[in-house]
Amino acid sequence: MQLSALLTSAGINIGLCSLLFSLYSILRKQPSNRNVYFGRTLAQMRSRRHDPHWFDRFVPSPSWIMKAWELPEEEILAIGGLDAVVFVRTLVFSIRIFSIASIVCMCLVLPLNYFGKEMQHKVIPSESLEVFTTQNVKAGSRWLWAHTLALYVISCSACVLLYFENKSIIKMRLAHIGGSSEKPSHFAVLVRGIPWSSEESYSDTLKSFFVKNFPSSYLSHHMVYRCGKIQKLMKTAENMYDKFSNHNAQTGCTPCDFCRQPNAFSILPNKPEVTEGGKIPHNMNDLHAGGKECAAAFVFFKTRYAAASVAQVVQSSNPMLWVTDLAPEPCDVYWSNLCIPYRQFWMRGIANIVATTAFLLFFLFPVALVQGLANLEKLRRMFPFLKGILEKRLVSELVTGYLPPVTLVLFLYMVPPLMMFFSTVEGSISRSGRKKATCCKVLYFTIWNVFFVNLVSGTVITKLDGFPSIKELFNDKLYPGNLPTNLADRAVPALVKFFMTYVLTSGWTSLACELVQLYPLLCNFINKFIFRKDHGPFDASWTFPFHTEVPRVLLFGLIGFAFAILAPLILPLLLVYFSLAFLVYRNQILNVYLFEYDSGGRYWPIIHNTTIFSLLLGQIIAVGLFVLKQSPVCLGFTSVLIGSTVLFNEYCRRRFHPVFRYIAAQVLIEMDQQDDQSRTEEIYQQLYRSYCQLEWITYESSKSRFSGNSDNGGCIRQTEGTEPGKESVPGNPS
Amino acid sequence: MQLSALLTSAGINIGLCSLLFSLYSILRKQPSNRNVYFGRTLAQMRSRRHDPHWFDRFVPSPSWIMKAWELPEEEILAIGGLDAVVFVRTLVFSIRIFSIASIVCMCLVLPLNYFGKEMQHKVIPSESLEVFTTQNVKAGSRWLWAHTLALYVISCSACVLLYFENKSIIKMRLAHIGGSSEKPSHFAVLVRGIPWSSEESYSDTLKSFFVKNFPSSYLSHHMVYRCGKIQKLMKTAENMYDKFSNHNAQTGCTPCDFCRQPNAFSILPNKPEVTEGGKIPHNMNDLHAGGKECAAAFVFFKTRYAAASVAQVVQSSNPMLWVTDLAPEPCDVYWSNLCIPYRQFWMRGIANIVATTAFLLFFLFPVALVQGLANLEKLRRMFPFLKGILEKRLVSELVTGYLPPVTLVLFLYMVPPLMMFFSTVEGSISRSGRKKATCCKVLYFTIWNVFFVNLVSGTVITKLDGFPSIKELFNDKLYPGNLPTNLADRAVPALVKFFMTYVLTSGWTSLACELVQLYPLLCNFINKFIFRKDHGPFDASWTFPFHTEVPRVLLFGLIGFAFAILAPLILPLLLVYFSLAFLVYRNQILNVYLFEYDSGGRYWPIIHNTTIFSLLLGQIIAVGLFVLKQSPVCLGFTSVLIGSTVLFNEYCRRRFHPVFRYIAAQVLIEMDQQDDQSRTEEIYQQLYRSYCQLEWITYESSKSRFSGNSDNGGCIRQTEGTEPGKESVPGNPS
Repeated sequence: MQLSALLTSAGINIGLCSLLFSLYSILRKQPSNRNVYFGRTLAQMRSRRHDPHWFDRFVPSPSWIMKAWELPEEEILAIGGLDAVVFVRTLVFSIRIFSIASIVCMCLVLPLNYFGKEMQHKVIPSESLEVFTTQNVKAGSRWLWAHTLALYVISCSACVLLYFENKSIIKMRLAHIGGSSEKPSHFAVLVRGIPWSSEESYSDTLKSFFVKNFPSSYLSHHMVYRCGKIQKLMKTAENMYDKFSNHNAQTGCTPCDFCRQPNAFSILPNKPEVTEGGKIPHNMNDLHAGGKECAAAFVFFKTRYAAASVAQVVQSSNPMLWVTDLAPEPCDVYWSNLCIPYRQFWMRGIANIVATTAFLLFFLFPVALVQGLANLEKLRRMFPFLKGILEKRLVSELVTGYLPPVTLVLFLYMVPPLMMFFSTVEGSISRSGRKKATCCKVLYFTIWNVFFVNLVSGTVITKLDGFPSIKELFNDKLYPGNLPTNLADRAVPALVKFFMTYVLTSGWTSLACELVQLYPLLCNFINKFIFRKDHGPFDASWTFPFHTEVPRVLLFGLIGFAFAILAPLILPLLLVYFSLAFLVYRNQILNVYLFEYDSGGRYWPIIHNTTIFSLLLGQIIAVGLFVLKQSPVCLGFTSVLIGSTVLFNEYCRRRFHPVFRYIAAQVLIEMDQQDDQSRTEEIYQQLYRSYCQLEWITYESSKSRFSGNSDNGGCIRQTEGTEPGKESVPGNPS
Repeated sequence: MQLSALLTSAGINIGLCSLLFSLYSILRKQPSNRNVYFGRTLAQMRSRRHDPHWFDRFVPSPSWIMKAWELPEEEILAIGGLDAVVFVRTLVFSIRIFSIASIVCMCLVLPLNYFGKEMQHKVIPSESLEVFTTQNVKAGSRWLWAHTLALYVISCSACVLLYFENKSIIKMRLAHIGGSSEKPSHFAVLVRGIPWSSEESYSDTLKSFFVKNFPSSYLSHHMVYRCGKIQKLMKTAENMYDKFSNHNAQTGCTPCDFCRQPNAFSILPNKPEVTEGGKIPHNMNDLHAGGKECAAAFVFFKTRYAAASVAQVVQSSNPMLWVTDLAPEPCDVYWSNLCIPYRQFWMRGIANIVATTAFLLFFLFPVALVQGLANLEKLRRMFPFLKGILEKRLVSELVTGYLPPVTLVLFLYMVPPLMMFFSTVEGSISRSGRKKATCCKVLYFTIWNVFFVNLVSGTVITKLDGFPSIKELFNDKLYPGNLPTNLADRAVPALVKFFMTYVLTSGWTSLACELVQLYPLLCNFINKFIFRKDHGPFDASWTFPFHTEVPRVLLFGLIGFAFAILAPLILPLLLVYFSLAFLVYRNQILNVYLFEYDSGGRYWPIIHNTTIFSLLLGQIIAVGLFVLKQSPVCLGFTSVLIGSTVLFNEYCRRRFHPVFRYIAAQVLIEMDQQDDQSRTEEIYQQLYRSYCQLEWITYESSKSRFSGNSDNGGCIRQTEGTEPGKESVPGNPS
């Protein structure tokens, strides 16, 4: 591929992006699209409507960029919680590190690559891309120290930046925990695996266990009910809800509020009284009599430390019974999964691993197809009948430069919903935990399939151009051992063009698509102007899709670290991507997505580990490069760098990451000691009401009613098939 | 190799074993060898001496076999703790499963292998060993279902037996914990990483932390002192100790007792009074004034549950500070490692992994050498000048049948002390933990080097007999993918003879050597009859070397499961080995080894996991076999078996193994509730005295004095170089 082909691709994408950005700035001003582009804002305040004049409405304007740019971190924290801040910090980190890398590599490495061999250079646009990579550096060159130096600068800055990011995120997390002293989850423990007894109900067994063992700290408990039964009960109340929801829409409060309004629903108890011994109020029992108790419950304690210690200490000699966990926040509880018997979890875990692995393997086929498209010349040789079509310049550039990544992106669209389904089946007890597990799966998948399989299948196809010689087979035979050399020698440079176009298409264009929200926009249009419905399922806002966006951003980081030295031209493209992403995601956080639950920054360890992995991959590729170019000194220096990176990671893992797993006893005890008598009474009063399963069921049934499904069958709440990879939340009727 | 060669090897070994067993039965009756063969018994009761008549003393007798056979499990538990019971149960399990396997394979599989091909059979002794393996079964044979059936019988019985072993060991562990309600370790927590402050001492910082956070449960604490300093202090008291030890020898009490005797040592405080606020008695402070405090301490709590919850809950937002762990038993504490700053541990961990890996790789060379010896014919072709010597029948059989395993065994002798050193540097806080870590390392090492490297290097040398054809290279190229087929096809059958002789030599003979205790015997002889010393370093008894014996037994299990179907002839040899081992180790537990500390059966999860690994390996090899022999039906059945084994393991891992990690809160709380006031007071009184660092130092200095080292340099207590792989404990002067 020539530089001009890359520029063509860049041109197409810049045009497309500009078009979409302008389109967005117009579309967002249309009142009919308000629920697409201002979902979050609408959910919070429905009254403030300011429509610009009709002329202004059709002129593109950059005002949203300014707003996104000026958004302070405190506001992001207030809007999106710690997770959103962590995500934005990742983007900031990426911009910083790739700015440094761009400067170093463009000034130092790129000229050396370009003038690496004594050759006749063409005009720059028609120069082959290989001339800008390390393939153009001759073996044994004295200038390879520059590559080593660049690698050192990039790795050291990345580590220093990561260290400070770790510190500041830890600090934010601690401040966040310390500031939220009234969180009911601090007092609650989720108990699963309550042993079944023929004489007592689960509730009584649980009560006698905790009263016996923790008489001084046990407060009360709240059983989890099998929701299928209650759901039927709820159906009878649906009419009443309908009336209520109309009223609700006028006052503009979300379904989450309604359960807390004591007079909104006559069946609901008015402020259930929680007594010392954990007695359940009578009317609550009546209500739940229809539903069947599960072997799971929320148990509330008088102090935060007591709850934390019960959650962390192994309770029973049979580890399948009395399993305790820290309770998720009330809005974060994934109620349907609480009913799963605990003894099923190990089977579900295995099934999940098997399914995910099978999916990874199955996915090799489309990726190989995509890679085949990128290796146009090999295709031409293998399928001679395509020769005529492929020789046309436009077709050729389209096929090599644009088609493969688009195909890949399309294939990738089916991954997140499937992974979300796997995580649901796995049995997460919290919605944020489920999303985090999905995030990990999608991340493994993305790195494995987009990066490694492309590498491997790339080399396989490259090899098909001649009969394999014995020497080549020997090389292949030692493949796992010689991975670095193979990576640096043939695989990576051959794929540079693929990944450059991947950044341009999947990166830039997907950001523009993210901004325009094509799919919801279309659905909204069809709903409003064709079906003439004023509210419907596409009135919905989504929670922020961390599970697709975090892996995507991390993949681009991986590409950057892996190719920084070999093909510095990719760095400016990435820098543009991250800068755009910074603006776009801040805008989306501000306007579009809901943040119903927060994992408290637990995405950070994933981000940290992936970044270190990317750094190490880049360094290993550099080792291969130096072996290939016969530079033992550089090789030695790089090995030292690899060792230091591993040490740094191990330090961070020990020093920072445990903070994300648990809240320290010291912090909890301090919060306990600051509470005064009246305040604790107030908190205790709230506890029982907070973990309200009815609220979830109402929410579920309202959702299924809105989206036209009369019953979603079982307990497992699946991602609605509305947009791939996005989890729907119920609409706010307007 | 012919069957006759195997029989020669077996003959040599049976002779050698009988000789050594008879020798043992004589030697043990000699009064001068009492401290070699009755170390444990002597340590407990020195007075009871019953010397047989001089004639009886020189006649071999099987009485020790009867005593070992009749030893009931309760006595093993009383003598050796749960670890010894677990070890004996492993042997029983092995005997059971390999009895079943022997019956099934000898009756079903062996005849099918022998008559697998239509061929002219020779007389059985001069028949090649290959005739008895699956190499003799023709491809597509209709009789392969018998192999599958045998595999099913072995796997299912192994799983059923494992399940019941798990259940009974768990039960014993719980009974063991419940029965030992006065254990000081239940009330104690080891705190490391106490933050340094310029204003306060570590002791004051610790006290204020725990008084503030745990006012109701904190009892007192005990700082750890840098032992180098105290050691000097102790040197001045050495003379006094000398006199004392003479007195001690006469009364026959161990050094462990002396610290508890209030009047034995005038510097020691008489029953230090532990006061409510954790005040350290004045005279204890005086004593410790000479030593420097470490950032570590034992903190004592009023209830067991409080201690357990403090130990398991994360204490500080900085995970490098206030690190809490369950305290080991007083006699199990590895004091020297407590002084290591906690922030060093991550570095030590990495250094340890690097060193162990490097050692594994370095060890490839001797193993390749050994394997070269086993492939005699290839050697003959490669080094023609050896032809003359190698053609002699005796030399040939000696070299192929006997020399390789002996070389390997000699090389293996250096492994355990080195691994023990690695585990020490790693920083275990308990002696049992250190030994367990060593056990894991030795196990990985053994399996990797003895089994896999022998396999791989075996195939490499097998290949050298002709110029490599392209087809062969292709096979090798796909090596990792085709591992099962390669294992079943060439590697495993080729190595059958090696492993058979390995069982005969390393197995049988090493048991005889273990019984005779050659090295201590020699040292004892030299000491008593040449140097005319009546007591010396070789008067010492050792703690039981779990870290060498558990991996050895498990390796033989692995060999058994891997070869059961392929070469059933190996099973009777193994059965003999396990039966002998059962007798020998019971005898050694009864008479020889000391059991100063107990990990509470924590070796069991290692044993369980290795057994499952061995089962899976055998099944994977069977998959390869069925692929090779073109039997898709058997292949399908075996795959189902692999899946079931994985499921079974996952279930056991969830259901049983957590019990080995922590003591359940329910158990602790029950024990707390059973204590009455006067009993708890008594326990509190004992707590402070139990964790007596001086005792350890005295112990250390007495040891270094006995073994002739004036000073062992630093804090790290290394294995003395007296016998490889065995950790010495101080001698009991007699």
